[in-house]
Amino acid sequence: MSKIKLALVQMKGFSDKDKTIEKMKKKVAEAAASGADIIVLPEMWNCPYGTKFFRDYGEYENDSKSIKELSALAKEFGVYLFGGTISELDEDKVYNTCYVFDRQGEIIGKHRKHHLFDVDIKGKMRFKESDVLSPGEDLTVVNTEFGKIGVAVCYDVRFAGDFNKMTKEMGALAFIVPAAFNTTTGPRFWQIIMQGRAVDNQSFIIACAPALDDNAPYDAYGHSCVVSPWGEIIKMAEYEETIVTAEIDLSEVMEARTQIPILNPTSL
Amino acid sequence: MSKIKLALVQMKGFSDKDKTIEKMKKKVAEAAASGADIIVLPEMWNCPYGTKFFRDYGEYENDSKSIKELSALAKEFGVYLFGGTISELDEDKVYNTCYVFDRQGEIIGKHRKHHLFDVDIKGKMRFKESDVLSPGEDLTVVNTEFGKIGVAVCYDVRFAGDFNKMTKEMGALAFIVPAAFNTTTGPRFWQIIMQGRAVDNQSFIIACAPALDDNAPYDAYGHSCVVSPWGEIIKMAEYEETIVTAEIDLSEVMEARTQIPILNPTSL
Repeated sequence: MSKIKLALVQMKGFSDKDKTIEKMKKKVAEAAASGADIIVLPEMWNCPYGTKFFRDYGEYENDSKSIKELSALAKEFGVYLFGGTISELDEDKVYNTCYVFDRQGEIIGKHRKHHLFDVDIKGKMRFKESDVLSPGEDLTVVNTEFGKIGVAVCYDVRFAGDFNKMTKEMGALAFIVPAAFNTTTGPRFWQIIMQGRAVDNQSFIIACAPALDDNAPYDAYGHSCVVSPWGEIIKMAEYEETIVTAEIDLSEVMEARTQIPILNPTSL
Repeated sequence: MSKIKLALVQMKGFSDKDKTIEKMKKKVAEAAASGADIIVLPEMWNCPYGTKFFRDYGEYENDSKSIKELSALAKEFGVYLFGGTISELDEDKVYNTCYVFDRQGEIIGKHRKHHLFDVDIKGKMRFKESDVLSPGEDLTVVNTEFGKIGVAVCYDVRFAGDFNKMTKEMGALAFIVPAAFNTTTGPRFWQIIMQGRAVDNQSFIIACAPALDDNAPYDAYGHSCVVSPWGEIIKMAEYEETIVTAEIDLSEVMEARTQIPILNPTSL
């Protein structure tokens, strides 16, 4: 059972979180109707992207409307749901967290964004997530009926060494990456990095991003995509709202790794 | 002094090694005439690419016509010469070795290809370099007046972890990669990997390949290229013989690393 039907929900939200949650529910239903085994949401799908919003839109895990709804949807449609990320409150801290649900709606994994986006591109953009967010401390690989899947959030994807560890030491065959590159970093880096991670780890890369929203404070790049272990772009969206569907076969991972054995422990 | 003029000699040779050496001398003279500080030759420029040729075309370091000529050229033109690779004999072993010469013609570095290309792409190609070649044991970073430059040979470029070490632990700001991808692996991987290495290490990648030769037993992909620390392709050749020239500024490396600080030791 190595074939997986994917559906990536590239959506935009509202400043009204409840309204966004209702929209998300419709989108997930639509994605499930495509026959998806795994549905993926974007980074911070229920919150405008910006450090000044994260605390206000945050939810405590044991009292989270978003988590309850995500869990119910996973169960209702019998799908794995990689719930993008939400702003997670834990005591006085705020994390950018991806919750993963199995077909019964149980949480089977949780990844707190490890690498915060503290970047200053001269004359183009400045972003300092660590003003508000705290970094997660772990790499995350979840078990599914299809095999092990690594989870990384946005800027985490730039750290090749972490992916290498998830592949070689933690057994990941594919990576799911809720991400929100922007219109500065996206055109420069998005495709290079997604293809690079795929080829270096001989793994599928499945990245889900918010759609560009002219009314939002952050110019999201969109371009949700699925990349094969050979680096081939199987599907890639543009900027607009859409559901990206693809069927992948994890047996291709082992084929790629057997044919071009770069993951054998011969590296210095 | 961070600006460097580069000239990459994308050439093809003859089955007659002496004839190829004469051709190489003309090409290096031509490259030097462009005002180059650093000239780069392709992998196995003096030898048809194939395991059955490597031993016959091999040379012992202390009695190598190719090395003598490369040294003399570096001195004559006052350039750094990254001499592609030649087949190096050492006792009963054969290595695929890049010699690096400074402006006085002195050898300042030597990199033996560490990762041998033992690959079997179903129905497309089979290659087993380890039938004949022995692997080098070290990573190689050379000191130049411009800063530290890493050296990798062809398939070495697929090993992200090695590049990460050369960047983080050995101080490389740029990488020179004599390489000979082929018309199967080239279209799939060449550009993805060169851009990926550049972006992940925020370093220049300078890759020099042989030209495609209809009379040769190996279908070289060509496509010698220079990629910026931002992953931008500054120059890329096609299949034919050419000299790729570019001027790069190593100060861009520190700019990239400052603006997007992925190389700080925050990785898990």
